[in-house]
Amino acid sequence: MRKLSMDELNRKTIDEFKDAEKIPVIAVLENIRSAYNVGSVFRSADAFLIESIYITGYTAKPPHKEIAKTALGAQDTVEWKYFENSKIAIDNLKKNNFKIFAVEQVANSISLEKFSEMNFHKVAFVFGNEVSGVEQQTISLCNGSIEIPQFGMKHSLNISVAAGIVLWEMIRTQLKKT
Amino acid sequence: MRKLSMDELNRKTIDEFKDAEKIPVIAVLENIRSAYNVGSVFRSADAFLIESIYITGYTAKPPHKEIAKTALGAQDTVEWKYFENSKIAIDNLKKNNFKIFAVEQVANSISLEKFSEMNFHKVAFVFGNEVSGVEQQTISLCNGSIEIPQFGMKHSLNISVAAGIVLWEMIRTQLKKT
Repeated sequence: MRKLSMDELNRKTIDEFKDAEKIPVIAVLENIRSAYNVGSVFRSADAFLIESIYITGYTAKPPHKEIAKTALGAQDTVEWKYFENSKIAIDNLKKNNFKIFAVEQVANSISLEKFSEMNFHKVAFVFGNEVSGVEQQTISLCNGSIEIPQFGMKHSLNISVAAGIVLWEMIRTQLKKT
Repeated sequence: MRKLSMDELNRKTIDEFKDAEKIPVIAVLENIRSAYNVGSVFRSADAFLIESIYITGYTAKPPHKEIAKTALGAQDTVEWKYFENSKIAIDNLKKNNFKIFAVEQVANSISLEKFSEMNFHKVAFVFGNEVSGVEQQTISLCNGSIEIPQFGMKHSLNISVAAGIVLWEMIRTQLKKT
């Protein structure tokens, strides 16, 4: 079991990334306090070739030193847009035929492993503040909520870990189809 | 879609967590440079009720201020052990009938979404240093390697995100069986 060299990883250049077909998934980052978390989501979005990141509220946006530190260049490949608040972002997504789901522990939320069987084509996921989660008024604008089932003492994952898991679940569904 | 209150989350107390049945999965953290990453893995391990974290090499171990900052208490629920190096940890795992897989981009690695269909009972995953990955000599001691498929420019996920995804994949498999 030999580790692969950098050349063998088939890493895309920035131009190749821009031209590559993305999966129709958008991550909405609402009032994320830590720019390190934002950078880490960029890195995962690059890995899983998702369409865009929508940054809303007081979430940090590139160019930003702390984002760059954890994004490791992904801030230059992944497309992103800034919206003053989540409502404007969600209106934009609805106009473009996206279904929007808050990632939040909500009454009647859909468990993540069941969500992927529902076969939505264009989906956006809203990830909320590290402490307070997705705003209740944002949740009300969404088509539904999904939840990563958790069984321990905390019932709270780091936001960049939660985003990584949800984006993986989407790319996983694509891989299973091919 | 009403957000659930803390009371409704059915969060376990420390004692309840210790008594709860875990999934037979162990995360081995080899030479992880960032204690924040270690804390984040504790938090995910708590969420997904995994059996233990094995800490090897120069990876930081509790009690540790930076681990506590990102583990948010999970360092007190999740069982962990320290081993001077990964070889000793792997010998211990093999004695206890675990199959061990390096999470690494390696020739002939198993793609993560296929791994879960292989139905191993007791599995350990080795996560390596943020820059150099799992040591080649450690990889040689493993039963195999698994890889999170990545399609972007970087081909590298943050280690706590990668661990969250792999642990989610294991709990997902359990949920699908029930």
